[in-house]
Order: sequence, then structure tokens, then C-alpha cells
Amino acid sequence: MLELRLVQGSLLKKVMEAIKDLVNDANFDCSATGFSLQAMDSSHVALVALLLRSEGFEHYRCDRNMSMGMNLGNMSKMLKCAGNDDIITIKADDGSDTVTFMFESPTQDKIADFEMKLMDIDSEHLGIPEAEYHAIVRMPSAEFARICKDLSSIGDTVVISVTKEGVKFSTRGDIGTANVVCRQNTTVDKPEESTIIEMNEPVSLTFALRYMNSFTKATPLSNTVTISLSSELPVVVEYKIAEMGYIRFYLAPKIEEDEDETKA
Amino acid sequence: MLELRLVQGSLLKKVMEAIKDLVNDANFDCSATGFSLQAMDSSHVALVALLLRSEGFEHYRCDRNMSMGMNLGNMSKMLKCAGNDDIITIKADDGSDTVTFMFESPTQDKIADFEMKLMDIDSEHLGIPEAEYHAIVRMPSAEFARICKDLSSIGDTVVISVTKEGVKFSTRGDIGTANVVCRQNTTVDKPEESTIIEMNEPVSLTFALRYMNSFTKATPLSNTVTISLSSELPVVVEYKIAEMGYIRFYLAPKIEEDEDETKA
Amino acid sequence: MLELRLVQGSLLKKVMEAIKDLVNDANFDCSATGFSLQAMDSSHVALVALLLRSEGFEHYRCDRNMSMGMNLGNMSKMLKCAGNDDIITIKADDGSDTVTFMFESPTQDKIADFEMKLMDIDSEHLGIPEAEYHAIVRMPSAEFARICKDLSSIGDTVVISVTKEGVKFSTRGDIGTANVVCRQNTTVDKPEESTIIEMNEPVSLTFALRYMNSFTKATPLSNTVTISLSSELPVVVEYKIAEMGYIRFYLAPKIEEDEDETKA
Repeated sequence: MLELRLVQGSLLKKVMEAIKDLVNDANFDCSATGFSLQAMDSSHVALVALLLRSEGFEHYRCDRNMSMGMNLGNMSKMLKCAGNDDIITIKADDGSDTVTFMFESPTQDKIADFEMKLMDIDSEHLGIPEAEYHAIVRMPSAEFARICKDLSSIGDTVVISVTKEGVKFSTRGDIGTANVVCRQNTTVDKPEESTIIEMNEPVSLTFALRYMNSFTKATPLSNTVTISLSSELPVVVEYKIAEMGYIRFYLAPKIEEDEDETKA
Repeated sequence: MLELRLVQGSLLKKVMEAIKDLVNDANFDCSATGFSLQAMDSSHVALVALLLRSEGFEHYRCDRNMSMGMNLGNMSKMLKCAGNDDIITIKADDGSDTVTFMFESPTQDKIADFEMKLMDIDSEHLGIPEAEYHAIVRMPSAEFARICKDLSSIGDTVVISVTKEGVKFSTRGDIGTANVVCRQNTTVDKPEESTIIEMNEPVSLTFALRYMNSFTKATPLSNTVTISLSSELPVVVEYKIAEMGYIRFYLAPKIEEDEDETKA
Repeated sequence: MLELRLVQGSLLKKVMEAIKDLVNDANFDCSATGFSLQAMDSSHVALVALLLRSEGFEHYRCDRNMSMGMNLGNMSKMLKCAGNDDIITIKADDGSDTVTFMFESPTQDKIADFEMKLMDIDSEHLGIPEAEYHAIVRMPSAEFARICKDLSSIGDTVVISVTKEGVKFSTRGDIGTANVVCRQNTTVDKPEESTIIEMNEPVSLTFALRYMNSFTKATPLSNTVTISLSSELPVVVEYKIAEMGYIRFYLAPKIEEDEDETKA
């Protein structure tokens, strides 16, 4: 028996919007720790990891570990039917082949039950080791989203270069080139507007903008985004989910001629 | 000679938006009583009845009964050219084959005349007898619209079931099932937010969501919608037009296997 | 060496939106006077003239006259990447085949450089003589835009007729006719909402609505528009750019049967 009651149901709606275009089908795993997901995108290039900790739910009952295969497009259709202020409860009986999403309006005058069929999905859970990164950039998530979108109108890939002074996003396309530099600024009034750089050594890596733009669909979940870069590892683009957990996107850098921009 | 001056011209704009997708061509009937329309939708499944009472117009001159055939798409194009605060006057000479819509801006600095050709349309006026209904539900129009839209993402038909406790909207589709229950609540602060159920006997009927969604285009006309249900009669979905009349949609229930949901 | 620094960068963004759909490629001319452009639309029917005077720039360095051929679609893509509050600097080295647009955020925390390839464009600069007009209408730009858009839903051409009392916009199409009259009103509280007519003699001219609608893309640049009409000359539709210059559109009247509306 599974029963997870989330007062701020809009969080779950935002999580679905963040990942449904990247991942078609995925197993959601429930355990005493929380409600989590790990899935490759449909072209097997990027990895998504989601965690909503059990403590973040008003009520969290999970009698035994369960893995529930869901089609994210269908799940998203159902969650779109929840109001932004609704309380959402996820329910499943042991051994059942369905999951139920219950939406309660704040006044309790409207109660909706959406029952969805579960799927059998083969998946292997990858262990993601803790790693040391050459550079970690924390910046406003809306600004990161804007930069990725802007650069996409010029080129297909972005070179992210970090120095102590700031982080540079560069691209190149048929119509010209673009460079956007965000300076480290830690002294702004609002901490969520600051750009903070922790750097062990300078790093410059190239990524497909298509994926970066896809990751920025998580922007409504958090005011800030954390980008962890290392030349031997996939980049981690992380959006914290307040008091509950995170959504993390992993993407391997491209090895290509643009790499010589590293020395720029 | 016909001259109908409507100070709140936006009402006429909203009426057109409510019916133009359902009905292509229709006769508007003018009499001492008011400006009215009765028309089947283009697939001859649903019926629309509109009444704007003469008392609701600032000036209402209708020397003799007239029936004016109009293409609603063209009429809508013209009314879209009226500002939301404009006064709209509908004018037609006796025996003329055109109708003129005059739009006056509130300051009278801008005056527009749109003249449209009338059409000959065969139509029979159906007498709609007053009827007793098993159940009448009054609820916020925006909530009804939201429910119809939400359920359309899951299935094609909606089962509307009324009991003393509330009204249930259900659907079923390839990806699962959905049930939305609105409880009777008469004690809310704002009467337009209340859901009120008058019930003689429980009723459960199935309707095509496509039409229900079409009817909800009238939502901007009224904060509340009234749904009158009886197992032998078409459902009536009514939107009152403040101090002027109403727009009513009639739709026959579907007889089908889902009917056994009646006992649910 | 060219370096033009425009504090209100959003002006340049709006200028591009106003002309990019009308003109594909054009030479921008820089001189001590200012930054200017003159170009025919791609079908060689309408003419656009833009002037941004040097005094309107915070910093204006133009060592020698330069003509820079740009693809306006590509330039628009780049300028869309500037924030609305950004300072924009246009830079080019003498003899360079590229131009650089630099965007600085108000806080200086984000600096972007977009470099675009220049093109060789053949163009002849037309001398546009100062002329006497039969009538000059100044009216709110949003109202002019609304009228052009509204009339387009009925017909393809607009007859603009000016008398001392007001200006009339008329059209005719398959579904009927439309006339919109804006009365002269000079006594409104806000001067930008007034309609002012200077008339030497009555005039009535016919224009293609497609072009008029294209011109109204400049509406965000100015609260008012000035329309100068003369029976022997192209109409001038002018949007002033505050403290900097103007954008002017020229369009020859159509000679056609509708011309007899002149006597209406």
C-alpha cells in the first residue's frame, strides 16, 4: 500500500513539465527515503535523476519498496487536470497494475480521482558516484534559461568556460558568433540573484544546446540552478526543489574541434 | 425599421464567440419581446437558443417582426472590430438585404459602421416545452468549463451523475479513468462560487465531451452555469446574460454501454 | 572605427521588429549625423526610412562614413538576445566584414557580444524631397493599428478620406463594407490621445492594407502616428522615435475603381 500526500501539488505538476519531453516512460521508485526516478532520455544521451524526500510529504506511507512504470506523457495529461492549489495524493495498492492520483481543491469542494495504468519497463539503476568537480557555478535559473535560448538562435552547441572572474557561454553558427559572460557577483541584495563560482581549475566544455534547453524546463522549480563541470565527467545541471529534494540532469560533453576554445 | 442600441456592446461580442463555432448560419429573430436566435449546430446534434430581451437595450425599435439570416462567421469578424467598451447598434431597414452594425467608442471620437449582407436561411422554429427535470445543478461556469476540458484529455464522453451530495463527472479512455466530484456547497461567501443541487431523483447521463466543450465557450457571459438533467430529455446547459436573457444549449444524452455507470 | 552606444537598447530592438518583415537586406549608413537606413521592401512597393540621430546616443564615434549591409532577419535574431533594459553598443572596425552588437545588463553583471557577418548590398539612395501635403493626420498609433487590422478582416484595400471634421477609413469585401470615422479631437487630457487634422484640401486615397498593417509594426516605438496625404505623392506614415529621430514608411496610392469614393 502506497499513499503519498503532497500539500503543494503544483510541485509535482512542475516536475512533470520538466521531464516529460525528455523521457517517455520511466519507473518511479518509492521507498522509505522518498519518491524518486532515474531515467535516460529517449535518445540515451542525457540522464535525469529526481528525488522527492519522504519528509516533504504531509503524509508518506510506503509499506514496501515499489517501482511503478509510468508513461510520462499520460501522467502529465492527468496532472495537468490538478489545480495549482490542489493537494495531490498518489495511491497504489500492493500488486496493483494501476496508480491513482487524487486532487483535492483547497476548499475540499472538488475531489478528483485519476486512475492510470502502470507499465512494465526494463531499466537499470545507475550508481552515480559522488565526484569532485573542477568548477561549480550557481546562478539565477531564469538567466541560465535565457542564455541557452538566446544562443540556440545562433548555433547548436554551447561552450561553457569557467574562470575565477565568471562563466562564459559561447556559440557559433552560420550567421555569426555569440559570447555571453556572467560575472561572479556575490554582493547583490537578493541571494537568488547572485552568481557564485567555486573553481578548482579553469574548465571549458562543449554541450548540445538542444539538451540544455530541455533541462531549463525545470526553471519554474527553483530560482537558482547549479552547474557542476569537470573535464572527465558529465555536467550536472541541478534544480533544488524546496525542502523536498532535487532534479538533476547529466549530460556528457561533446569532444570536437570547438574544444580548442578551452584555451580562450 | 429596426434599431437596437446596446450600451454594453461586449455582451454581443461574447455571444458571438459562444455560438460561432457551433452554428454556421442562422436566423436572428426580432420582435417586441427581444432579439433571439434558435439554431441547430452544423451536425444537427445540439440546439442553441439565445434571448436578449428588449428591456436590456438602451433603445429598442422594432416596427415589425423580422427574421435576419446571418453567417455567424462573418458577423463575428465584424463584431470583433468593436472595442470592448463600445456601444453597439444593430440597424436594418424594412425589406433591406443588409444589416448594419454601428460601433461608438465611449468618447464618441470613433464611429464605425459595418454593413453585412443578409442570407435566406430555411429554418423551422422548434417549440421547446417547459419541462420537469430530475435534477438541476448550478455551479461556477469556470469550474464546469475546466472539468469538461480536463476530462477531454482522457476520454470522449462524460457521464454526469447527480446525487444529493454532489455531482460527479466521469470519463474513461485508453490511458485510464477520471472522476471529478463537486460537492454541494451553499455556504460560501460569494454566491457565484456555490454549487447548488436541486434533485427530485438521482440521474446519470452520458454526453459527448466535444459538445460540452463547445458550450463552455459561453463561460465569459456568466459566472454560473445551470445544468438541467432528465433521463428522457436533452440536457439544458444555460448561461444567464445579466439583465437581458440567456443562452441555452440542448444536447441529447448518448445511449450506450457506459450507461451502466448509472448505478455507480 | 565605429562605436555607437545606445542606453535605451530596447529602441533598437523595436526598430528591428518594425522593419524586419518588410525588408530582408539593407545597408545601414553611419555618418556624423546619425545611424540611418533607407530601403525598399522586398516587393519594391514601399520605402522605409530610418534615422537615429547621433545626439541620441550616449557615445557616438564614427570616424568616417560607413555603409554596412546587414540581413535584417539575422540582425533581429541577435537583437532579440538583448534584454529590454540592456545598453546596446554597435561596433565595427574600419574595413571589417563583421559588426559586433554588445549588450550590457543594467547591473553590468552580464555582458554579451554578438558578431555578425556583413553583406555587400547594391542600393541606390533615393532623394526624398520635402513636399507639401494636402492633409496631415496625427492620431494615436494604437488606434491606427487597430483600424488597419480590423479593416483587413473585411477587405484588402483601405480608402483614407480626410475632411476638416475627421478622417475616414473605408473598405469593402465579399462579406460587406466597413467605415471607421475618427473625429478631430484636440481637447483631450492626454495630448497623445488626440486626433489632429491639418488640411489644405480634402483628399481621399486608396492603399493596400497589407502594407499599412506592416507599417503598424512600428507602433511600440511611439504613442502617435502621423499620416501625410497628397493625391500626387506617396503617403508618409511616420513614427517619431523619442529624442532620436523617426521611422517613415512611404507607399504609393492605388489607382482604381474605388477612387470614386473620393466624392463620398
